[in-house]
Amino acid sequence: MLQERTKARSDRPLSGWRLRIHDIIFEADTPAGKAFDVLLLIAIAISTLAVMLETVKEVERDYGEILRVVEYVMTVFFTVEYIARIISVTNPWRYITSFYGIIDLLSILPTYVGFFFTSARALQIIRIIRLLRIFRIFKLGRYVREAQLLAQALKASQWKITVFLGTVLALCMVLGSLMYVIEGGSQPGKGEGFTSIPRSIYWAIVTMTTVGYGDISPVTPLGQTIASFIMILGYSILAVPTGIVTVELSQGDQKKVLTTQSCPHCARQGHDPDAVFCKHCGGRL
Amino acid sequence: MLQERTKARSDRPLSGWRLRIHDIIFEADTPAGKAFDVLLLIAIAISTLAVMLETVKEVERDYGEILRVVEYVMTVFFTVEYIARIISVTNPWRYITSFYGIIDLLSILPTYVGFFFTSARALQIIRIIRLLRIFRIFKLGRYVREAQLLAQALKASQWKITVFLGTVLALCMVLGSLMYVIEGGSQPGKGEGFTSIPRSIYWAIVTMTTVGYGDISPVTPLGQTIASFIMILGYSILAVPTGIVTVELSQGDQKKVLTTQSCPHCARQGHDPDAVFCKHCGGRL
Amino acid sequence: MLQERTKARSDRPLSGWRLRIHDIIFEADTPAGKAFDVLLLIAIAISTLAVMLETVKEVERDYGEILRVVEYVMTVFFTVEYIARIISVTNPWRYITSFYGIIDLLSILPTYVGFFFTSARALQIIRIIRLLRIFRIFKLGRYVREAQLLAQALKASQWKITVFLGTVLALCMVLGSLMYVIEGGSQPGKGEGFTSIPRSIYWAIVTMTTVGYGDISPVTPLGQTIASFIMILGYSILAVPTGIVTVELSQGDQKKVLTTQSCPHCARQGHDPDAVFCKHCGGRL
Amino acid sequence: MLQERTKARSDRPLSGWRLRIHDIIFEADTPAGKAFDVLLLIAIAISTLAVMLETVKEVERDYGEILRVVEYVMTVFFTVEYIARIISVTNPWRYITSFYGIIDLLSILPTYVGFFFTSARALQIIRIIRLLRIFRIFKLGRYVREAQLLAQALKASQWKITVFLGTVLALCMVLGSLMYVIEGGSQPGKGEGFTSIPRSIYWAIVTMTTVGYGDISPVTPLGQTIASFIMILGYSILAVPTGIVTVELSQGDQKKVLTTQSCPHCARQGHDPDAVFCKHCGGRL
Repeated sequence: MLQERTKARSDRPLSGWRLRIHDIIFEADTPAGKAFDVLLLIAIAISTLAVMLETVKEVERDYGEILRVVEYVMTVFFTVEYIARIISVTNPWRYITSFYGIIDLLSILPTYVGFFFTSARALQIIRIIRLLRIFRIFKLGRYVREAQLLAQALKASQWKITVFLGTVLALCMVLGSLMYVIEGGSQPGKGEGFTSIPRSIYWAIVTMTTVGYGDISPVTPLGQTIASFIMILGYSILAVPTGIVTVELSQGDQKKVLTTQSCPHCARQGHDPDAVFCKHCGGRL
Repeated sequence: MLQERTKARSDRPLSGWRLRIHDIIFEADTPAGKAFDVLLLIAIAISTLAVMLETVKEVERDYGEILRVVEYVMTVFFTVEYIARIISVTNPWRYITSFYGIIDLLSILPTYVGFFFTSARALQIIRIIRLLRIFRIFKLGRYVREAQLLAQALKASQWKITVFLGTVLALCMVLGSLMYVIEGGSQPGKGEGFTSIPRSIYWAIVTMTTVGYGDISPVTPLGQTIASFIMILGYSILAVPTGIVTVELSQGDQKKVLTTQSCPHCARQGHDPDAVFCKHCGGRL
Repeated sequence: MLQERTKARSDRPLSGWRLRIHDIIFEADTPAGKAFDVLLLIAIAISTLAVMLETVKEVERDYGEILRVVEYVMTVFFTVEYIARIISVTNPWRYITSFYGIIDLLSILPTYVGFFFTSARALQIIRIIRLLRIFRIFKLGRYVREAQLLAQALKASQWKITVFLGTVLALCMVLGSLMYVIEGGSQPGKGEGFTSIPRSIYWAIVTMTTVGYGDISPVTPLGQTIASFIMILGYSILAVPTGIVTVELSQGDQKKVLTTQSCPHCARQGHDPDAVFCKHCGGRL
Repeated sequence: MLQERTKARSDRPLSGWRLRIHDIIFEADTPAGKAFDVLLLIAIAISTLAVMLETVKEVERDYGEILRVVEYVMTVFFTVEYIARIISVTNPWRYITSFYGIIDLLSILPTYVGFFFTSARALQIIRIIRLLRIFRIFKLGRYVREAQLLAQALKASQWKITVFLGTVLALCMVLGSLMYVIEGGSQPGKGEGFTSIPRSIYWAIVTMTTVGYGDISPVTPLGQTIASFIMILGYSILAVPTGIVTVELSQGDQKKVLTTQSCPHCARQGHDPDAVFCKHCGGRL
């Protein structure tokens, strides 16, 4: 995003009031910029809360009018902000088609559509993605660096985790099918049990991940024995992703320990802290 | 607290019977001090138990009188202790406004208020915070050092954990809203399901954390598929905070273990804390 | 499998069209081989889905005919593939009795049996093991290396995990029996509770692994106290397998990272795999 | 146990047939000793299974006679074994009062008591502790070493885990009491909810440990919000014991890496693998 903006700016530098709006909206290092970020944070929080509360029947019945007013005010505010963002960047199209540009549009569009087509109620839920706009504000500062470390550790272990999840899913499918054979049709009274393979696989996932709703649970002794086996399996293999991520995080930390010193002879980096000679060209560091 | 007290003492040194009370109540290195700590521990345990049992209907009906007597005796004992603490410190106000001072007051106040205003029953629950007084007794000895190590590891990883929890919460909100759209209104018979967004978010948190009450559970195939996805997600990302804390604890431990002392002869580091001679050149450290 | 095939090939080298079929079916490094793998993947996915959907009453009622046609087409395709595999290996018997050979046979047999003996419906479920054939396709590439690392870590810790699981199971049996004594017969109205020791052990496993269905749950105060103890125990000892696997994975990683090469000049070790010169004395490795 | 026996033997060495019985029963390095261990393992498994199945109504009704015969045969076998153990040790009293001696006695006593006093049915459950006798057989071989490593890691972290569990319990008590105030009496229809503080604390533990039975679950919005907070807390702090145990296990492993070499000058151990000179006296290793 930053890189993008830097490039965009190099196209044709902003000046005058457009530069000033840009600094307020996109940057956070001026008092006006900080104030704008705080204001935006509050607006997002209030409007997300309003979207959520609208779906609660009691609240809608008693405070529906207030919620709708809040909604319209917020939509106007977000619309003004959206237009200001478009104006204050040198390459508006790049902003509009960017990830946050689309989210910004989806945050305000449903209200206008709902205003003209009152039947499009289901569409209103889309507004909940306003929530994602919070991440833009938190993009600066300490949070980013930590988030990057975590994301990096997850990325480094993505293959291991894919293998692990694939195996877990295949296990759930095979064990779920087995349970369908054992338990299927054994609950004439309840009618909630292992009535089909997809339902049994759903149950196997619920059990393997130790969630355990209890909406479906085995009733035959053999089924309960196999369920016990699945539980203990799920309980034990939970250790695997944890181990993977821990090792990656631990290495991410160790990489931080590597000196950033580059060899004066071959200019290459990645030396251990105790290295006296460059490991690439043999020159003294 | 200790530091605070040391400073307080330097204001105007205690002497005579006030010093003796101080040593008994605040210190644990005399026989009387130890005995007082044990007595206090028992008193806290009994009175907390009494508060808890009072809310059980059967116990209240049969042993209500005994519980009330226990309560009054304990309150008198705690009141005497509270007054003794105020008397035996050089700066009473500092004690009264400290964390434990406020807890001490809140432990006894509700009983007196309930004695004069019999309608203030709900207030009685506040007395459960007596439990926190136990931590004062355990403040000394081995427990503190271990607790500090844990607290330090958690503190060092607080940013990472904040980022992680923020992401989890945002995921729960988005996924909960999605489930509201999919499952909402699909349970006309039950009336317990995904009736509003806040309720759906509550369900998403219950599922993501692998708690899985089962009071709300998806019934449509699409809903169950997404629920399975949330479960596996929750099951996998549980690895992240574990990895964070493990790495921090591991580093906290290593810091403890290695001295930063370097050998005066060969200038190399990495000696064990119990080393007398350099392990590289044999010179005396 | 590869080793097996290499040996088999040395028996009597394949040639002509049999070699070509072999390359298409067993290898993935030619365009035809890759295309075949993708085709097979889609066929397995479709036929597994068909087997699963057949058990859903609504789908079976509305689309039963289509599912049966899909099933027959897939079975014919798998049969052709099975015959092609037998023809294109030098030692057919070795393939037929191998793990994947048996799975391949079990994938097609039930359909033929069900065609002639219509009563053998339960047998149809066996076809779900087609799913396992997916692992053959994924046997190559990145997945294998990661899976091997995980499998190796699990294998290295298998004794520790066996000890751990044995202890957990014994604990569940003893605690389950204890709960049977405490809770047994205390739920005359429900009839779902701790009615026998095996059932109580099942409950103990459900609780210890933090699954918690809620189909059986304690109702007496003493039972709930012991249940709380079991939960906290299960919650805490979950740390043990995680710790075991993490340590093993961490060591598997370290083994990968460091070469055992020692410098020919100063004879010191601990060089990175990409080191060309000794980091201690600067000599060429 | 071994130490104990060695001492006992030095009292007055066994000889003749008593020594031979001792070798068969207590040791596993002769063919007869191994065969006895296997026989004992089977006997324990069968008799434990019989005790468990006796409590299942359907099995008891149909196979009650067989189970009772099995029970009597097993009890006679265990009685003979118990007497043989007493005879074949030099100090019988030491064996009888040892941990396994008491378990051996409790394994057979209830059957005899039940034979004479038919009303003492509840006592029969005690026989389930026969299960613990299995651990004696597994005391030898690989299992012990791994179990010791795990036990050592748990022991090394016992203080940290005590602090952690104490904090979790205190949190559950405070949060449970809070939920009692919020949810108490809000479920007039169900009567299953937060009816007393002990029950609310039980619920808090069920939630914090992510077990989540669902027999008690919050219904008010505020209660669900706090429940969400407890879940996320429990989900996150699960990381703490895992981190503790992982670090300990990792160190237990590293300690294994330490050389067992003792200094030729001062005879002290604990040197690093790369040490050239003794870190205690400076002498060359």
